Amino acid sequence: MGPLENIEDVKDIKHLSNQELEELAADIRAFMIDHVSRTGGHLAPSLGVVELTLVLHQIYDSPKDKIIWDVGHQSYCHKIITGRKCRFTSLRQYKGLSGFPKTFESEHDCFNTGHSSTSISAALGMAIARDLKGENHKVIAVIGDGALTGGMAFEALNHGGDLHTDLIVVLNDNEMSIAPNVGAMSGYLSRMRTDPRYERGKEELEQLLNKIPKVGPMVAKTVERFKDSLKYFVVSGMLFEDMGFTYLGPIDGHNIGAMKTVFTNANQLKGPVLVHVVTKKGKGYPPAEANPDIFHGVGPFDPATGKVFQKEGPPAYTKIFGETLMDLAEDQDNIVAITAAMPGGTGLDKFSKKYPKRFFDVGIAEQHAVTFSAGLAAQGFHPVVAIYASFLQRAYDQVLHDVAMQNLPVTFALDRAGLVGEDGETHHGIFDISMLRHMPRLVMMAPKDENELRGMLTWAVKYQGPTVLRYPRGAGQGVEITESYPVIQLGQGEVVLEGHDLTMIPVGPMVYTALQAAEQLKEQGISAAVLNPRFIKPLDHELIVEYAKKTKRIVTIEEHVLAGGFGSACLELLNQENSGAEILNIGLPDAFIEQGSPNQLRQAHDLTASAIAEGVLKKWTFPEKRKRPEIRGKA
Amino acid sequence: MGPLENIEDVKDIKHLSNQELEELAADIRAFMIDHVSRTGGHLAPSLGVVELTLVLHQIYDSPKDKIIWDVGHQSYCHKIITGRKCRFTSLRQYKGLSGFPKTFESEHDCFNTGHSSTSISAALGMAIARDLKGENHKVIAVIGDGALTGGMAFEALNHGGDLHTDLIVVLNDNEMSIAPNVGAMSGYLSRMRTDPRYERGKEELEQLLNKIPKVGPMVAKTVERFKDSLKYFVVSGMLFEDMGFTYLGPIDGHNIGAMKTVFTNANQLKGPVLVHVVTKKGKGYPPAEANPDIFHGVGPFDPATGKVFQKEGPPAYTKIFGETLMDLAEDQDNIVAITAAMPGGTGLDKFSKKYPKRFFDVGIAEQHAVTFSAGLAAQGFHPVVAIYASFLQRAYDQVLHDVAMQNLPVTFALDRAGLVGEDGETHHGIFDISMLRHMPRLVMMAPKDENELRGMLTWAVKYQGPTVLRYPRGAGQGVEITESYPVIQLGQGEVVLEGHDLTMIPVGPMVYTALQAAEQLKEQGISAAVLNPRFIKPLDHELIVEYAKKTKRIVTIEEHVLAGGFGSACLELLNQENSGAEILNIGLPDAFIEQGSPNQLRQAHDLTASAIAEGVLKKWTFPEKRKRPEIRGKA
Repeated sequence: MGPLENIEDVKDIKHLSNQELEELAADIRAFMIDHVSRTGGHLAPSLGVVELTLVLHQIYDSPKDKIIWDVGHQSYCHKIITGRKCRFTSLRQYKGLSGFPKTFESEHDCFNTGHSSTSISAALGMAIARDLKGENHKVIAVIGDGALTGGMAFEALNHGGDLHTDLIVVLNDNEMSIAPNVGAMSGYLSRMRTDPRYERGKEELEQLLNKIPKVGPMVAKTVERFKDSLKYFVVSGMLFEDMGFTYLGPIDGHNIGAMKTVFTNANQLKGPVLVHVVTKKGKGYPPAEANPDIFHGVGPFDPATGKVFQKEGPPAYTKIFGETLMDLAEDQDNIVAITAAMPGGTGLDKFSKKYPKRFFDVGIAEQHAVTFSAGLAAQGFHPVVAIYASFLQRAYDQVLHDVAMQNLPVTFALDRAGLVGEDGETHHGIFDISMLRHMPRLVMMAPKDENELRGMLTWAVKYQGPTVLRYPRGAGQGVEITESYPVIQLGQGEVVLEGHDLTMIPVGPMVYTALQAAEQLKEQGISAAVLNPRFIKPLDHELIVEYAKKTKRIVTIEEHVLAGGFGSACLELLNQENSGAEILNIGLPDAFIEQGSPNQLRQAHDLTASAIAEGVLKKWTFPEKRKRPEIRGKA
Repeated sequence: MGPLENIEDVKDIKHLSNQELEELAADIRAFMIDHVSRTGGHLAPSLGVVELTLVLHQIYDSPKDKIIWDVGHQSYCHKIITGRKCRFTSLRQYKGLSGFPKTFESEHDCFNTGHSSTSISAALGMAIARDLKGENHKVIAVIGDGALTGGMAFEALNHGGDLHTDLIVVLNDNEMSIAPNVGAMSGYLSRMRTDPRYERGKEELEQLLNKIPKVGPMVAKTVERFKDSLKYFVVSGMLFEDMGFTYLGPIDGHNIGAMKTVFTNANQLKGPVLVHVVTKKGKGYPPAEANPDIFHGVGPFDPATGKVFQKEGPPAYTKIFGETLMDLAEDQDNIVAITAAMPGGTGLDKFSKKYPKRFFDVGIAEQHAVTFSAGLAAQGFHPVVAIYASFLQRAYDQVLHDVAMQNLPVTFALDRAGLVGEDGETHHGIFDISMLRHMPRLVMMAPKDENELRGMLTWAVKYQGPTVLRYPRGAGQGVEITESYPVIQLGQGEVVLEGHDLTMIPVGPMVYTALQAAEQLKEQGISAAVLNPRFIKPLDHELIVEYAKKTKRIVTIEEHVLAGGFGSACLELLNQENSGAEILNIGLPDAFIEQGSPNQLRQAHDLTASAIAEGVLKKWTFPEKRKRPEIRGKA
């Protein structure tokens, strides 16, 4: 029984000594490792900030003081000590504790996060709200060095530095280098060389230094050390100072005493303060310290060895995408690959090693990723931008304004399209069709399986305009990978199953679900055709209208919200063509979808084969067709 | 006849002396003022960069070297000297010369711009393309200090500083202060005070300085001046140096000789360079220098006096919005107003003067504007974010992820929704309905006129969730402003005209166009009802379904693309409800819409009353109803 046993709420840590906090930190780590080894989760980020979290909750008075966790995947310790310890077995499970801060879970979660780089904006809004109300609590944003590369974090720093309200930004630097620090000193010297005002200063500096040799070599050494100090002053923290923040740090994020001193000091300062805390991702669990990438977001593993349990099954779409792109890049010199801080998650890690000059990780900066690609495309390259569907939401305008409007040949590989599972509402890729299909000139596809993904990607990198491929998270259908890809032609779908009572038009891998539904309907004597549209935009007008007229009943199926989605596109087409068919749109409701395994969520939202078949039977009676159960029993 | 007479193409300026360039600059200014006084346009930004443009085109070899104009409204001189002088009378006119760079206009326009802060990303992509192709031309991005506050500019600087390819960023600082520079020195000293490593350096510095008094007061003065120089070194340019750029400047952007020297030097440097050029907005035209805001984007004016010709007519929606919000803010303390660098354009200028503490201009930073508002809303305020419809595209994810997902009471006032006119394809607000209506929990409205805008805003600031109001650019309908606003209720539309042959459902001010169309149809003996839906989301299910069933024919009308738009929402509803009605969707095609006056564009895209009536008559024959022309003649 460790000290965590006595911690029910944040008030229980208020009076602990530094030594007791350290013991508690160790116990919390053991608790986290034990639980996350069973549920999976963002272990390494949360292990890294245990001491920081304890210090923040001892120094600050949550919920009166507001602590906002950027992205939020590092909030496990925060959750454990704010009354959610007992629910931790349900972490990231259906109807369980979220892996991200949620205001509905606790008054200590003051702002929901999930996507990167929002915390400083939200914190600044809260700080201003406090000022306007005449209150005097603290507002603290905790943001990682990766999240800081997102442009909106800079927009917020810029505004915060100008407003000069009291705000504490904790830069949780877990030893990922922030790119701009590279080469700053050489740049600094270069600037001095070309600045006319420097010349005057330099002369005076030289005059000054000329006086010094008189006092002997000891002082000359001091001068050198002074120059080094000057170098340090210039390099460290100045960027934040230039943005109007008082910079404190760097401090050791695992040294409780040091942090308490600095935060106590920070509280005395007026205006915005940036506290630079250096932490180690995965701290305290050797397998995670050694492989912070693997343990960033990890599935169940053996806590004793750190061995991650491998899922059996077919390779993931991500892997197929990455390998296919490598094959294509071998023959097609103008293919380049771009990721926004997700080389592993998007399957581009191997590509980056084989073609380092043709691979670009721009950091968490989706807007720049897209327009940077537009620049490359304008000069003859074919960029493939691999990005999670829900993260492309950050670059709506860049896709529309910089790529589609100029009809540039950029391919967007939208991984994690559809229900993603345990990360929940902030991460599901269920808005991309509605977000993109109204953009003129954009071509949008969804492969039904691995082979079709290969065929579509092969086609897309030759197409002279913008293309989007959406494919789901996780394992493929397990179809045999053939050397001859399906032949893709712009706006052409395929007939997967013939039938005459109704036609199902499912998007992507829902084709296989629809085939199962067709099988179930067949048992009822109902003959369903299944079309694979392949193209969400442009639709295969001819094929869809033909089957609408032939079967008179159309069922669209998509793992995506219905509003403005694929079914909506089919309604537009069929209405315009006066098809006369009756149409059933199956998809997700007008709501944010909770966390849970994709299969649990498909069950909950009627996206299984049985639910689809039932939906069809509910919508239409097929009086002449449908076998009665008793008849079937006799057959 | 001035020197511009001899300039047909950029090659004609290559060998001009500095003196000749200055004379040419004066002639170009006269030409610009003369033309823009008739067409209207972005005069002040373009006047400010005449010398800069001439220098860039003399030093660099366009189109081999690539010059990218951020936003692009400062590109008039560039257009004039790159072969488009003779087309300048058609500037911003229907089928005429664009006010922004367009690749289809000239090989010297290498990348289309319009929205802010894209140029560094695009330039970096082009620079990398050059490197990969083994070419060695220059790439130059010209970006204003305002555009630099956009987060994607920082994302691009961050990536550019890391890649270290040759790239020239020209910071066109037209004397709008960049916020973060404020207070940097005091911040710098504070940092030194709290940095433990500073302590060591300070001791050494003090030891060093202690040696100096020996040499008398002259040197003491030198030390003071050295400190001043040090201060300058630290404050100026360091932010860009920290981002990995070599900083050159500031230089006078109207001094041709000085600029030529600096750009020649910049070309010798490896890696990314930032050239800081200080220009005067409106330079050379006293009325524009005195009022750069008015002459930023200006309508026709008297060139002799600078007096802008006032349009007669009813007040603009923008003005009504601003005044209504001021009224509401008087009674409702928790209303705050946010703009992203558009206090005048969004009608918030008066609000900002009356309620300076409740008004926030965050700079060109739409992402931050939205999440900052979410932070305020989370703490009990009701932020009203006034933003142009096409600029909200920059904050898609923030509206979805930070506002809608948390159901926060933020009101988005989307000005310039619909066809905006002369700014053309990048600025039309014709995607907002499709972009927003699939976001769960978001309520979206469009007022038919000024009074309804007042009623809807009054309702929205009391609603406990996210709301969007879309209203067009320019003059209202001229209805009398009544003290009693229309009573708005969530999801309730109104019947504007009764009829029984068909029902028109127009969005926003298209209600008035539809009424005219109904009038024309009446002359044909056809009785059209007109519903004002008021709510785009949630739709008035009951009312729309009732009229669909009653009149059997529905016509949706929107100044917006059809794909995923309002008509699409009605199709979804009516299909789900099995209304059995035939539906005609009228709106804009799946294309980017060119420039031209809104009325010209409505003519071109069949959005006039006559075109709507014709569309109805083309879709349906009304055999029993329609009066034959000869019958009508006899009557």
